[in-house]
Amino acid sequence: MRVAVIGVGLIGGSLGMAARERLGAHVSGWDLDPSALTQARARGAIDDGARSIGDAVGDADAVFVAAPVDALPDLVAAVLAAAPSGGVVSDAGSTKRSVVEAVSDPRFVGGHPLAGAETSGIDQARGDLFDASTWYLTPGPMTAPATTTRVGELLAGFGAEVSVVDAAVHDRLMAAVSHLPHIFANVLVSHLAAVDARVALGPSFRDATRVAGSNPAVWSAIYMDNRDELVRAIDDAVARLSDVRDKLDRADLDAVVHWCEQVSEQRDRIGR
Amino acid sequence: MRVAVIGVGLIGGSLGMAARERLGAHVSGWDLDPSALTQARARGAIDDGARSIGDAVGDADAVFVAAPVDALPDLVAAVLAAAPSGGVVSDAGSTKRSVVEAVSDPRFVGGHPLAGAETSGIDQARGDLFDASTWYLTPGPMTAPATTTRVGELLAGFGAEVSVVDAAVHDRLMAAVSHLPHIFANVLVSHLAAVDARVALGPSFRDATRVAGSNPAVWSAIYMDNRDELVRAIDDAVARLSDVRDKLDRADLDAVVHWCEQVSEQRDRIGR
Repeated sequence: MRVAVIGVGLIGGSLGMAARERLGAHVSGWDLDPSALTQARARGAIDDGARSIGDAVGDADAVFVAAPVDALPDLVAAVLAAAPSGGVVSDAGSTKRSVVEAVSDPRFVGGHPLAGAETSGIDQARGDLFDASTWYLTPGPMTAPATTTRVGELLAGFGAEVSVVDAAVHDRLMAAVSHLPHIFANVLVSHLAAVDARVALGPSFRDATRVAGSNPAVWSAIYMDNRDELVRAIDDAVARLSDVRDKLDRADLDAVVHWCEQVSEQRDRIGR
Repeated sequence: MRVAVIGVGLIGGSLGMAARERLGAHVSGWDLDPSALTQARARGAIDDGARSIGDAVGDADAVFVAAPVDALPDLVAAVLAAAPSGGVVSDAGSTKRSVVEAVSDPRFVGGHPLAGAETSGIDQARGDLFDASTWYLTPGPMTAPATTTRVGELLAGFGAEVSVVDAAVHDRLMAAVSHLPHIFANVLVSHLAAVDARVALGPSFRDATRVAGSNPAVWSAIYMDNRDELVRAIDDAVARLSDVRDKLDRADLDAVVHWCEQVSEQRDRIGR
């Protein structure tokens, strides 16, 4: 089997490793940055670095595009123009509506692995990155059912748990599960930097802000691409913060205790 | 040396273990819950469980009170009434103004270890819990300098890095470093529970909400005790959230990129 990976950073590199190690695939890679390709080959993430997207995907059974979300529509279109008619194509972007709406091809299904977090770059890539992690697939109206099935089989082979959802549902969920937590982490860092940038950090601050300040180009593109859902999520969060603030301001201990107990129940419901 | 620990949960139990293992101290414990004392003894956190605060602290060279912040003023007063004239007394509460203002005794210095986070209970106690973690000491106007020095020596013996600060400064810093992060974690959980409680959680959500829903009685007391500083911190955070929200709402990519870059610099300044 031949797999092509477009973009060999943390996700693309890990994907190449998983495909080689777990599926015995031959993996071709392409990246805007030639040195990333050299490193990817040295790390065993790809078998060969291609000189063009066409070279990488020309005879690929499956192609994965792992690039910043604002680059995805163009890159996926270029891949589909060069990929064989029997192949399948997916991506690994954190937002799904924009790419799924831009691409109308039976061979393409949108994808998004819940993995990676604050690290980036091929040097952090690992073949087991996707073990037991959720990988969303978001078929569009033109996606052939066989494409979703085939890509899902490959991802299961990487160790991921595949979940098929509508792109709009995905983006709404990700605003709550990922994008708002990133915004919150950033705000905690900005607030503390304004109070005292040299104070000792405790474990709760460290964990709460692990993803703060992650790659600005990558994350600003994600925020912008999902801005309608993210604005709604921020509005809801601000309303909740204002509510707690008022409970505290009027020194209403019972209300604060009740709120903490409610959150404790919600925490049990959503799990860890 | 004889050490007494009032309250043998995660912090008190770890403190007892550290005192026994690292300082070779004889440790007496007292707790409202007799079964916690039995467990603390079985786990090697204390040498003996006392029947009263007086029995525990009567001949102690040093006493540590590790109890919820709303119980501290009364417990510390009871300890000081029974402790020998040559001993020192400290506590481990997450807020410091209220106990330091309530207690006027040269033998007492306020204390707060930055350790513990979301776990609680004697079964999680570890003698190395405080290794390389910051332990704040907050002397009041009546604290004898020798008390601060002596308690600081013991804490250094536990592996902690001692930092002496004013109680008001401590509480303002903790609003930013600990209490606001806890509020944020709670709000993220409440928001997600309202969107979809059964969705898969990614690594960024898991880390951002590790402390969400922690012991409601303990945390509501902390929030209430530091509510003036916490209200100010929430107001600042809401202003920052509203600012990002408006950048997103008007689709101002440059402003969003600039904000992400600013946070990235702030993150580098405050460290990890």
